[in-house]
Amino acid sequence: MVLAEELAKQQRSISVAEFFEKNKHLLGFDSPTRGVITTIKEAVDNALDACEEAQVLPDIYISIKKTGPEIFRIIVEDNGPGIVPAQVPFVFGKLLYGSRFHQIRQTRGQQGIGISAAVLYAQLTSGLPTVVISRTGVKEQAHKFGIQIKIETNEPDVISEQPFEWDRIHGTRVQIEFKSTMSAKKKLLEYLRYTSIVNPHARFRVELDDEAFTFERVSQEVIACPVAIQPHPHGIEFGQLKRMAAASDEKLIDFLVNGFSRVGKKTAQEMCDRAGLKVTAKVAGLSADELKNLLAAMQAVAVPAPPTSQCLSPIGEDLIRRGLDKEFQMDFVAARTRPSSVYSGHPFVVEAAIGYGGRLEAEGNATILRFANRVPLMYQQGACAITECIANVNWKSYNISQQGLPLGPVLILVHVASTNVPFTSESKDAIADIPEIEKEIVLALQDLGRELKTFLSRRDRNKLAEDRARAVCAVIPEIAAKVSEIVEKPVVDTTPIEGRLMRKLIAKKWTRDGKVTIEANNYTASDVEISVYDISADNAADADMPPAFSTEMDGQFTKVWKMAIPKQTVWRVTYTGKGGGMLDIRGIEDNKKMVVDLDV
Amino acid sequence: MVLAEELAKQQRSISVAEFFEKNKHLLGFDSPTRGVITTIKEAVDNALDACEEAQVLPDIYISIKKTGPEIFRIIVEDNGPGIVPAQVPFVFGKLLYGSRFHQIRQTRGQQGIGISAAVLYAQLTSGLPTVVISRTGVKEQAHKFGIQIKIETNEPDVISEQPFEWDRIHGTRVQIEFKSTMSAKKKLLEYLRYTSIVNPHARFRVELDDEAFTFERVSQEVIACPVAIQPHPHGIEFGQLKRMAAASDEKLIDFLVNGFSRVGKKTAQEMCDRAGLKVTAKVAGLSADELKNLLAAMQAVAVPAPPTSQCLSPIGEDLIRRGLDKEFQMDFVAARTRPSSVYSGHPFVVEAAIGYGGRLEAEGNATILRFANRVPLMYQQGACAITECIANVNWKSYNISQQGLPLGPVLILVHVASTNVPFTSESKDAIADIPEIEKEIVLALQDLGRELKTFLSRRDRNKLAEDRARAVCAVIPEIAAKVSEIVEKPVVDTTPIEGRLMRKLIAKKWTRDGKVTIEANNYTASDVEISVYDISADNAADADMPPAFSTEMDGQFTKVWKMAIPKQTVWRVTYTGKGGGMLDIRGIEDNKKMVVDLDV
Repeated sequence: MVLAEELAKQQRSISVAEFFEKNKHLLGFDSPTRGVITTIKEAVDNALDACEEAQVLPDIYISIKKTGPEIFRIIVEDNGPGIVPAQVPFVFGKLLYGSRFHQIRQTRGQQGIGISAAVLYAQLTSGLPTVVISRTGVKEQAHKFGIQIKIETNEPDVISEQPFEWDRIHGTRVQIEFKSTMSAKKKLLEYLRYTSIVNPHARFRVELDDEAFTFERVSQEVIACPVAIQPHPHGIEFGQLKRMAAASDEKLIDFLVNGFSRVGKKTAQEMCDRAGLKVTAKVAGLSADELKNLLAAMQAVAVPAPPTSQCLSPIGEDLIRRGLDKEFQMDFVAARTRPSSVYSGHPFVVEAAIGYGGRLEAEGNATILRFANRVPLMYQQGACAITECIANVNWKSYNISQQGLPLGPVLILVHVASTNVPFTSESKDAIADIPEIEKEIVLALQDLGRELKTFLSRRDRNKLAEDRARAVCAVIPEIAAKVSEIVEKPVVDTTPIEGRLMRKLIAKKWTRDGKVTIEANNYTASDVEISVYDISADNAADADMPPAFSTEMDGQFTKVWKMAIPKQTVWRVTYTGKGGGMLDIRGIEDNKKMVVDLDV
Repeated sequence: MVLAEELAKQQRSISVAEFFEKNKHLLGFDSPTRGVITTIKEAVDNALDACEEAQVLPDIYISIKKTGPEIFRIIVEDNGPGIVPAQVPFVFGKLLYGSRFHQIRQTRGQQGIGISAAVLYAQLTSGLPTVVISRTGVKEQAHKFGIQIKIETNEPDVISEQPFEWDRIHGTRVQIEFKSTMSAKKKLLEYLRYTSIVNPHARFRVELDDEAFTFERVSQEVIACPVAIQPHPHGIEFGQLKRMAAASDEKLIDFLVNGFSRVGKKTAQEMCDRAGLKVTAKVAGLSADELKNLLAAMQAVAVPAPPTSQCLSPIGEDLIRRGLDKEFQMDFVAARTRPSSVYSGHPFVVEAAIGYGGRLEAEGNATILRFANRVPLMYQQGACAITECIANVNWKSYNISQQGLPLGPVLILVHVASTNVPFTSESKDAIADIPEIEKEIVLALQDLGRELKTFLSRRDRNKLAEDRARAVCAVIPEIAAKVSEIVEKPVVDTTPIEGRLMRKLIAKKWTRDGKVTIEANNYTASDVEISVYDISADNAADADMPPAFSTEMDGQFTKVWKMAIPKQTVWRVTYTGKGGGMLDIRGIEDNKKMVVDLDV
């Protein structure tokens, strides 16, 4: 048949660069704004990963500048360990090339696609090569490269290479120019703000056209670099086992102990026995059926979950709370780091936090912050398993209104840390709906939801108690007046009762027999530090506690006493004078104090 | 610095097969059920594309069988043109290999990833090679292959190859076995049902364990195979132009005319003039700056939109309506094929349909059917631009309730046909949010929404008019009785008034002076064809219109007249007799007729 022959002529291999050039939206280059953010994100991911490997505090400089009509120049520079000259063309000029793909540990970059995709996008839209400067140490010469990608073969195309005088001792600087229509300022600052929440050890300096911003580090502690682990016997597929076996020259027992996580001699022996294989058998010589039995045995024998303390780097509850406190002032924040778990053999940890009130918008959907391996996810919120989990929690049972997503002044943060985060696409914007991960997210959110409910109930209870007290206080003076009328005695001072009921600080001033007394009665539930301002014609020279400060103007003396008053105690000062004037208390909220001038 | 050297040692190239083995969820293999559907979908896509290229009516056989614990065998066989033996290993054993990636036309498969991903998944989970049988014509020998993929290099690994006796004259059969826990019957039948809606020329036979199903073709017409076109000058990026120029040995004017869609001599001349370039210049010799000027000129000169009639294959309004009518019986269906449009130089057409009522669920979200290039999209509805567009339309203004998505007995179908459908991931489950496409979808839906609103308003108006008429009819007999009492005349027959008001067919029978009369008065708005059944002791032998049929039993004669009665006319028959018995009208709905026996 002629047709099949004709069709055969059109069959061709497609290079991965061609593929992603045509499907650039898969890499996050579907709009000019997004291209800017994606490029910076990929460069910053690499910088932070490299600094972590080198154990230096990251100092990252970012610049965006318009250099021509619709052409933007993006520069990202770091103080990382640098890249040896021979590797630079591959790291930037070849898709699917990197050091982190084959390692089982938490890293920001995973796929060896990110930064080279930006190089690809630049050469596609502006035709300009990417300029890379890198230096690996004080004794080494810096090198400067001009790099592109050969699309048909996905191999680097080095346009230029030369030594370069650079003031940095070590680090990497990448300069990418592409067609765009805007610099995406708002989104970029949002991205950096979120990035610094989860990377408190990093400093970011940004120059955006003519504006400069700095996101200062709040921690001087380098975060530990996650250590690569071996695959877990429960998470391996037949194809992988076969390949590992073929490449091994070990005996079966050594292969199991050395090649897999959490397998000791005893466990390995048990696996061999169950598979009916000798521990001394050469792995490379096992038949497909023997390997199948081995795999079944490996997955049947109980093995502890993979170790996560070294290969994962969760942020931690305390740091999440502090990060959120710094960026959002809220009435309530709680954070939870879940125990580590496993999906398809990949260890992961879910962390979550909920904040309430404060400066959060009272109306509309809750604020959602999504993170994966300490990287904020900026796009495709609707397609993300995190969003789905948030929508699936019954927030109404935690006294939060909900319409799909929770509503009101609520902030929800979720961080998924894993040796292999399952993204929905190469642009790494959304997490795929893996049941094991979703379960952990929901558990964390439910736990935090309960805590939030307790806070809201207590707040509501307090409010209720206060309302009642207020109602009682409103009638007390009338009752007192009535009673004094009946018993024919002068009206008693009811403020102490009010103070006790309302848990307030009650300050009073009165004058009797040429003596002025000021009294502050702390009925609140906590110790207070206050200043008493007393302005009158009296100079209070003979006060039994001299004021901290006293000044005169136009015959009026301003006297200030500063003191701490423990809860449920009273403070008092007396001096000779005529009283009157004005009394004020500072250092305590308005709704916590009551000032009564009995002379007036 | 030692560190950079150490890091360099870990740098490695990642094969695309390794990448997708690790990220298999990107290809739609994230759960065992989904793996089954994805595999069948990819194989069916290829089969339909191949049959289209060969212009044969597709006859596709699908079988799923459990062959061992957790092992399922999937077979897909077609009557397409077959694949020449030399190509078979590459088509099935190499990711990113195919004939359709470099062509600008509408095809189901686009990326050369699909079926080889299934081969990869099989070897990863079951370790079994994929078996392919193919034959390219009656004079050719069929060949049978066992194929796997070399993961580290993404090259085919031919395990076995031999000639094969096959009763098919031409076609391809692929057999893939992988680990799964279920055969996904419901989802599979849903997939085939939707596929046959948009491929009315294809027959699908399915064997699922021990059950057999057939989706018969409803059209005998082969659909035209879309023809590849050249890229459009407005949709090209600098990088592509540079590559095309470097590969060309033509003069500039010929390069523009031959290499681009919709560029004639005159347009090419104008582009050259505007770029300040000679029409006779060799393209390969142009500098980067000259090419930049050329690109600017190409995009500045007005060029008609790319031709879509050949390269795209929309389903068409009529066929969509028929397809939906076949699968869903609804009260209302409307379909719209939008004019073709362009995004980033890729032509596309949006088609949409709305159905209402009938057997659709009265409660809950609307039924949404999403298609891209005649392939149903089965997963990730929430991540799809189609869903987003549906949610963004204000359905309340078309009298449809809405909570995010429209609610109630509504069906919405959207088909996006393009030379390059922008999917959100390689699993091709959801369309990315490209503004140009979203605009077309929304316009189509709004247009259909207005049509649906008209239908609903008319239905509501009809219902209102009917309610009013019913109320009037209820009092007419009483009024008639009152009037006859006052004027002292016998009660008149009010049924004609009722009939007119209610737009019904009124049949009456009465006997006077030994003559029986049957009258049928068509007050409806349309012509009717009815049968009049008259059962009584009269034989109606002298009827002025003899009955079409007459029979006697126990002294009772059943007489049947069949006739068409145009709207607003009356039919009448008279015969000698005593009357009585029973009168019935068939061939018209109950609520459209009223039968009155005045003898009773």
